[in-house]
Amino acid sequence: MSLLDDIQSPEDLKKLPPEKLPELAQEIRRKIIETTSKNGGHVGPNLGVVELTIALHRVFSTPRDAIIFDVSHQCYAHKILTGRGGARFDKLRKTGGIAGFCRRAESEHDAFGAGHAGTALSAALGFAAARDLAGGSEHVVAVVGDAAITNGTTLEALNNIAAHSKRLIVVLNDNKWSIDRNVGAVADYLNKFITTPAYNKATRRLRSFLEKIPGGSRLIRIGSAWKREKKNVLTDGSSPLFENFNLRYLGPIDGHNIAQLISYLEFSKNSDKPILLHVRTQKGRGLKAAVANPEKFHGCAPFDPETGEILRAEKGAPAWQKVFGETLVSLARQDKKIVGITAAMPSGTSLDLLKRKLPSQYFDVGIAEGHAVVFAAGMAAKGFKPCVAIYSSFMQRATDMVIHDVCLQNLPVVFCLDRAGLSPQDGATHHGLYDISMMRAFPNLVIMQPKDEAELADMLAAAFSWARPVIIRYPRGRAFGVPVGDVPKKIALGESETLEEGTDGGEVCIWALGGPALQVAKTLATTLASERGGKSPTLVNARFCKPLDAEKIAQQATRAKLFVTVENHALAGGFGSAFLEKLSDLGLCVPVERIGWRDEFVCHATSADELREHYGLSDKEVAARVLSRLQAR
Amino acid sequence: MSLLDDIQSPEDLKKLPPEKLPELAQEIRRKIIETTSKNGGHVGPNLGVVELTIALHRVFSTPRDAIIFDVSHQCYAHKILTGRGGARFDKLRKTGGIAGFCRRAESEHDAFGAGHAGTALSAALGFAAARDLAGGSEHVVAVVGDAAITNGTTLEALNNIAAHSKRLIVVLNDNKWSIDRNVGAVADYLNKFITTPAYNKATRRLRSFLEKIPGGSRLIRIGSAWKREKKNVLTDGSSPLFENFNLRYLGPIDGHNIAQLISYLEFSKNSDKPILLHVRTQKGRGLKAAVANPEKFHGCAPFDPETGEILRAEKGAPAWQKVFGETLVSLARQDKKIVGITAAMPSGTSLDLLKRKLPSQYFDVGIAEGHAVVFAAGMAAKGFKPCVAIYSSFMQRATDMVIHDVCLQNLPVVFCLDRAGLSPQDGATHHGLYDISMMRAFPNLVIMQPKDEAELADMLAAAFSWARPVIIRYPRGRAFGVPVGDVPKKIALGESETLEEGTDGGEVCIWALGGPALQVAKTLATTLASERGGKSPTLVNARFCKPLDAEKIAQQATRAKLFVTVENHALAGGFGSAFLEKLSDLGLCVPVERIGWRDEFVCHATSADELREHYGLSDKEVAARVLSRLQAR
Repeated sequence: MSLLDDIQSPEDLKKLPPEKLPELAQEIRRKIIETTSKNGGHVGPNLGVVELTIALHRVFSTPRDAIIFDVSHQCYAHKILTGRGGARFDKLRKTGGIAGFCRRAESEHDAFGAGHAGTALSAALGFAAARDLAGGSEHVVAVVGDAAITNGTTLEALNNIAAHSKRLIVVLNDNKWSIDRNVGAVADYLNKFITTPAYNKATRRLRSFLEKIPGGSRLIRIGSAWKREKKNVLTDGSSPLFENFNLRYLGPIDGHNIAQLISYLEFSKNSDKPILLHVRTQKGRGLKAAVANPEKFHGCAPFDPETGEILRAEKGAPAWQKVFGETLVSLARQDKKIVGITAAMPSGTSLDLLKRKLPSQYFDVGIAEGHAVVFAAGMAAKGFKPCVAIYSSFMQRATDMVIHDVCLQNLPVVFCLDRAGLSPQDGATHHGLYDISMMRAFPNLVIMQPKDEAELADMLAAAFSWARPVIIRYPRGRAFGVPVGDVPKKIALGESETLEEGTDGGEVCIWALGGPALQVAKTLATTLASERGGKSPTLVNARFCKPLDAEKIAQQATRAKLFVTVENHALAGGFGSAFLEKLSDLGLCVPVERIGWRDEFVCHATSADELREHYGLSDKEVAARVLSRLQAR
Repeated sequence: MSLLDDIQSPEDLKKLPPEKLPELAQEIRRKIIETTSKNGGHVGPNLGVVELTIALHRVFSTPRDAIIFDVSHQCYAHKILTGRGGARFDKLRKTGGIAGFCRRAESEHDAFGAGHAGTALSAALGFAAARDLAGGSEHVVAVVGDAAITNGTTLEALNNIAAHSKRLIVVLNDNKWSIDRNVGAVADYLNKFITTPAYNKATRRLRSFLEKIPGGSRLIRIGSAWKREKKNVLTDGSSPLFENFNLRYLGPIDGHNIAQLISYLEFSKNSDKPILLHVRTQKGRGLKAAVANPEKFHGCAPFDPETGEILRAEKGAPAWQKVFGETLVSLARQDKKIVGITAAMPSGTSLDLLKRKLPSQYFDVGIAEGHAVVFAAGMAAKGFKPCVAIYSSFMQRATDMVIHDVCLQNLPVVFCLDRAGLSPQDGATHHGLYDISMMRAFPNLVIMQPKDEAELADMLAAAFSWARPVIIRYPRGRAFGVPVGDVPKKIALGESETLEEGTDGGEVCIWALGGPALQVAKTLATTLASERGGKSPTLVNARFCKPLDAEKIAQQATRAKLFVTVENHALAGGFGSAFLEKLSDLGLCVPVERIGWRDEFVCHATSADELREHYGLSDKEVAARVLSRLQAR
């Protein structure tokens, strides 16, 4: 019988005797390791916050109180403690199972969903302001990591907190492995502070707080013990950074000492000004391999829970990002003006290859996509050729910088949008299905997607030669194993590639943008041929979404009865939409069947195929739609 | 003969004897007042930085050195000193004249263009990193205001500066009228600091710097004089906030004392770490009315240079924003859950009306669009009904928050996008021509635009009733003078309004989105009728861009030979694009002539009509295109 069996809600957690909590933490940790070793997921961040999450749910009462997790990739213990443990947790990130992130639709305990970094403080301040206006007394807690704290949105929120609420608790989850150096300076500061009159005043104020809250006198004793044992405890306004933002600062606090965490959180409940608790946690705690390789185990594939070895499918084609990273290194070696810029995703984007090989041509700016793009624009204005590698869905953060700083000034910045298309197990916040529609209207911009990894390398070389803003989008995961040439093939701006001339007299022309779409298109072409007595359609690798190959479209339109566009993107405003516009601009009226993602959010699932099935994009349904459109004429 | 007559470039400025500089400042100031009193423009910000700009161009040598102005609405003196004074300056913000912002295309002295706030530090850091990589010795200076310094992108850049360059000069142009209180605390801090050993070390280091630079010994004397006269001078690392970001801090400095500014800037040239100069300036200096009304004279219409009275055209219809502001007050009075949120634009958006009438339901979050949207999402998640009022082009900053925080969670946030369409005299960075294409693909989102101010009021009331994300876009400037009803008319979601049934048997159907587009459509309808022997087209007020009125489109398509869509938006991905998609989804193939802004950036001009003329959107050209399309069938 495990402790977890009896915990269906935070109320059950509150019934456990305090001395059982460390045991509970170990059970949760085992559950997380057991599940993520099979399903993959954010191992490191979640193992780090087990004690913190237990303490939060002991002290606060969700859903009345709100706990808002930044990014929310650290919500596993929270899910286990709020009715989503046991068998439900086994289906984490799987089709029909619970999500890897917080979702309001999933539980009333998920006060606010997330997937992108830096939103928790803003959302929490919205909660707090709403509570204040409504005259409520409930608590609002934001849990934010030390990486997201320097994101622009977080910093904007920090600047606003004191002005818009007196009651907000920020938990800074500081899990940097190289934590000691930073915290040393803060500790010095605290030690200096503790001898000043301000400290004594703070202590008196603290004492009067503690007396007001339930169990307060016990806390006073705890407080005294702390003071004897450890000088940097329960101080007030002691960290210059947060002091500047008018937050009360408490810490640093051991993030794996549940009793201490509970006491601090109890104290913070009663603070008469917004308060920041600086909690030190160990990423990956409880899994040796994760502690040793925090980056590898941040988010990872299934692994052996004993050895920590990541279990890979048998060796296959290289990932798109690996080909990108290697090509960039090779191009940057030949042209010293080429530099690579990442927003805290060196390994995810494979820009770590550049970091290793040509460190002076590599820049990591942290989770700061907006800054990354303007910084690139600045370098471009000084004659450099920056390549900004950002996931498609995170690029949404910097669309204004793409138009205002790069496109308007027609600067040669190459954007490599990784994870364009599906990120199945991560779900709605991570699918890259909106980059084309969001940026297609920007003048001067080129948007393209390669059919395979060899073409990705060719496109990257071409992009640097055009001296203008370029987006290259490509999916996550494995490419096709096509050999990448040593010398890039020349790609002419805006020119498509006809892969197969149809035998149907040009009746049906299929245009696909990018490798995954082309796979769908090829299957469709085969089906169409067999359904129409061997008459095969024409198959085009579009390459460019902008500028579209108008000449070929016009040419084909003279004979075509139906165009089919295929894209791994939302239909609204996407590649097919651009195709419709081009036909219309040419004064042509030919039916177009657009294959892509319809107007609804795409959830998470075990695999891309299951999502295609669920959203009407299976090969079978695609073929059926096209055939019915052909018959309708 | 004025001093300005002899200044065609910064080289000429450098030849003037120092004692002539205050006189030059007065001449520049007169020129700015003379021109802006006729042309309108950013009066206050520019009058505040005249001495600072002179000092910058005395100390630095553009275009070799780069001076990057944040927003760049304070670049008038810079333009006058870099070959754009005299007659060229007279055409400031006029058709064919110089722009009101920095533009790389306009002058080699404009190192980096801008129009939105918060980009200067990122761009400057890009310049500095590029210079360092190339082994250059030139200087990079960013000039940023005290409002933009708390923008997320600026803060992201601040966090990166020390990591990516040792040599970067940030000039913090602190022009708050209520400056005294803030600066008092800094001054206290400096006074405390100056007695510490750190100060003496800093002073020694400073002395050795000064000895290395030309004129250094003179500067040492100046430095000594300063120390005697004013203790808070030439200190080092003295402001906790910037110290935390590892910048050297100098200040506060009198922004109207040219000699002192020059000395500080000369010193900062030789700093071995990034440095921030905190300069205090007076917004509107030299124009009494501007000093007295800093908000009114931030950016303003022509005015009487003597009295400072703003010259308005004769009284006409109310502005769209005024109707918005008044309607919001009236709705918020009835429903206490309604709140208004602005990102530092209370008067521009007319949210100042809410501020005055219902201050507890009003929030200004500063230049922080991203935070504004997530903050609104947080309030919405707690049961409130936030209305976020942001200019269309500034909303580009927060598109990720609209999809990730609002639409994905289907939260009831109403976005009122002011300045949707043209902002003629401001130009490319301020036209609101991309909001539809950037956000049309977001699931759950409603996008609409009213035909007149009465419908704006109706739409606002309807939006709050739908409990989902809604965008209402409307133009800058005057509406039509249509009376606004006391009780809002009910607007059904997705339902268009047929304004005129055509007499041409439904052959031509014109769909217009919003008031200005409808004006164009009406003129077009008249022309079509007269060109076709009195056969008038059908005229539809689309109201909704999303969801489109599919039922009416399908119905009209049975008889229509041509659809015409009219929008005040880019054609790529805009309203007409959505119309094409809808027809295609319905399996219909009817020609559509789309009237809107083609795929190029729209520059500034004296009036919207001139821009329409220039970009092929005059009434005449619109009619010609539609008629030729009709004949082509």
